[in-house]
Amino acid sequence: MISPDISLCFKQSLEDIRTLINSQLMKQAGASYPANLYQPIKYFLEMGGKRLRPCLTLLACKAAGGTIETALPSACAIELLHNFTLVHDDIMDQDDLRRGKQTIHKRWNEAVAILSGDGLIGLAYRALLESPAATIHRVMRIFTEGVIIVCEGQAIDKDFEDREDVSLEEYFDMIEKKTGALITISTEIGGIVAQAEENYINALREYGAFIGRAFQIQDDILDIISTEQVLGKDLGSDLAQGKKTYPIVCLKHCAPEKDWQYVQEVLRRRYIEGGTLEKVRDILERNGVLAMAQNQVQSDMERACECLQAVNNGNWSKDLIELSTLILNRKH
Amino acid sequence: MISPDISLCFKQSLEDIRTLINSQLMKQAGASYPANLYQPIKYFLEMGGKRLRPCLTLLACKAAGGTIETALPSACAIELLHNFTLVHDDIMDQDDLRRGKQTIHKRWNEAVAILSGDGLIGLAYRALLESPAATIHRVMRIFTEGVIIVCEGQAIDKDFEDREDVSLEEYFDMIEKKTGALITISTEIGGIVAQAEENYINALREYGAFIGRAFQIQDDILDIISTEQVLGKDLGSDLAQGKKTYPIVCLKHCAPEKDWQYVQEVLRRRYIEGGTLEKVRDILERNGVLAMAQNQVQSDMERACECLQAVNNGNWSKDLIELSTLILNRKH
Repeated sequence: MISPDISLCFKQSLEDIRTLINSQLMKQAGASYPANLYQPIKYFLEMGGKRLRPCLTLLACKAAGGTIETALPSACAIELLHNFTLVHDDIMDQDDLRRGKQTIHKRWNEAVAILSGDGLIGLAYRALLESPAATIHRVMRIFTEGVIIVCEGQAIDKDFEDREDVSLEEYFDMIEKKTGALITISTEIGGIVAQAEENYINALREYGAFIGRAFQIQDDILDIISTEQVLGKDLGSDLAQGKKTYPIVCLKHCAPEKDWQYVQEVLRRRYIEGGTLEKVRDILERNGVLAMAQNQVQSDMERACECLQAVNNGNWSKDLIELSTLILNRKH
Repeated sequence: MISPDISLCFKQSLEDIRTLINSQLMKQAGASYPANLYQPIKYFLEMGGKRLRPCLTLLACKAAGGTIETALPSACAIELLHNFTLVHDDIMDQDDLRRGKQTIHKRWNEAVAILSGDGLIGLAYRALLESPAATIHRVMRIFTEGVIIVCEGQAIDKDFEDREDVSLEEYFDMIEKKTGALITISTEIGGIVAQAEENYINALREYGAFIGRAFQIQDDILDIISTEQVLGKDLGSDLAQGKKTYPIVCLKHCAPEKDWQYVQEVLRRRYIEGGTLEKVRDILERNGVLAMAQNQVQSDMERACECLQAVNNGNWSKDLIELSTLILNRKH
C-alpha cells in the first residue's frame, strides 16, 4: 500500500513548508515584553521539532483543494497548542531535556514554565482567529474540544502510572486522547478551512486518527530502542515514570510471570539504574511485544492511507500518503 | 456620587444571579472521567467565591438591553478563565490556602493542579462558544486577548518580586494586565452579547477598567489590614512574596529612609515572622499610604460610575452602580 520511495520533490516541499511554519511561529511569539514570558516561549519554539501537526494541516488543506495560506493560521495554532502541552508535560514528568536542550522549568523555573505554557494557549487561539471567517465557529469548536481531550488524555496517562492492570483497550483510549486528538484535529481542520465536502473532511479526520495512534506507539518503541543522541532526551524515561506504554501493556499477556514481575518492579521504582534498560529491552524483544508494536504501527499507517484512498481514488491525497511513509520510517 | 444605600431588592437579585452562575459552572464541569482531572476542578469551583466577574457580565448585558440568558455562557467562560488563573497562580505563589480551603497543588499535587488549570481554560472556551452566533468572532477575539494579557500581567507581577524600584506607572500597567483586563472584558463582553450600540459598549468597558483597578488596590489593602478568618487565606502573603503592591510602591516617596529600608528588608526576606506584619502595617499607616490607597479606590469607583452616567443619563446602568457600592464596601 505505502510506497517505499519518497520523491525528492516532496521532501523539498516539506522542508519549504517547515520553514514557512517556523517563520510564522516566530511572528506569533514576536512580542518582547515582559521578557520573562516571551523569552522562554521563543526559546522553546526555537528548539525546533518535526512540526508534524502543522505540516499535516497544510497538506490536508492543500489536498482538499485549499491553499497553504488558508491553513497557515490554524496550522500555527495547532503547533502552539502542541508546544503548550509539551511545556506543561515536561514539568509534570520532571523531564529536564527536550530536543537536546534544557526544558523551560529547568532553565528558568516552574513558575516561568507554567506561565509560558499558559501564554502559548493564548497565542494559539489568537492565531486560530485568523482562519477564514466562514469556518471560524466550527474550527474553534473542534480546536477547543481538542484542548479538553488532550488534558483528559494527560490526566489518564498520569493515572496509569500508579496502575499495573491497564488493558489494551484502556491504553488505546488514553493515547487517542493524549496524542491522537491533536493529530486528528490537524488534518480535520485542514479540510474544514479548505471548505471541502464532508466526505473529504471525514476521510482526513480518520486518516489523522490512525496516524496519531501509530505515532504514539512509535514514541513508545523509540523510548526503548533509540539512542539518546538521536532522541534528544533520556532513553527509558517512560520506564522511569512508570508509564503504561504499548509494549508494556501487551507484555502481560505474552510473558512468563518472572519477566512480567521484573518489569513491574522496574516500573514501580521510578528510576533506571545502569543495565536495567537493556534487561527490559531484552525481555520485550524476547517476548515479541516490540515486534507486535511495530506491526501495529505498520497496520495503522496502512489503514490511515486506506481512509484517504476510499474517497475519489485517493489521488487528491498523494502528499499525505507520502508523508505517512516518512513518518513510518522516522528514527526520532 | 455613589449611593450609600443598597436596595434589599438588588441584594436579593444578586444572590439569585450567583446561584444561577454556580449551577451553570457545575454543569460546565460536569464530566466525571478522568476523576483526577474533573474532581479537582469541581472541588475548586465549589469553594465558591464572590463571582464578581460573571455578575458584572450578566448585569452589563442586562443594562445594555440583553437578557441574563444571553450572557450566561460568556459569564461562565470568564469565571472559568478566572479560576484557571487562580489555580496556576496558587502554584506559582506557593499559596496553600484559598477561601479557607487547601489549594489544589496542596491537596493533590502540582501535576494535578497544572492540568486542572489547563482543563479550566478548555472548559472556558467551550462555554464561550455558546454565545450568540453573531457575536462569537468578536467575543472570542476579546476573550483571547484577555487570556494573553492576564499571562503578561502575572509575568510582570512575578518579575516585580525581584525589583525594588517599581514606579507607580509600572504598577498601574501591571495591575491593569493582571487584574484589570479580565474585569474589563467582563463588562465589555456583556455589552457585546447584548448587541448594544458602541457607545454603551465603550462605557461598559471603561467602567470595567476602573472597577478592575480599584478591585486590585483593595486586594492590596486587605492583605495588610484584614483578618485571616475574613480573608480565608494567610494575611501578609503579598509581603511574604515580595509583591509590589500599591501601598508599597507609594511608600518610597512618602516615608523616611529608615521606614523604607525596613520594609525593603521584609520584602527581600520572603517570609513573615511574628510581629513583622504589625510593624509594616504601622509604617504604612503612619506614612499615610494606606489612606492614599483607600482614596485611590474611592476615586476609581466614582470614575467608573461616571463612565456609565455619561451615556444616556446613566439610568440604564442602575444595577452596575449599585454593584460598585457593594464592591467599595467589601471586606474580603
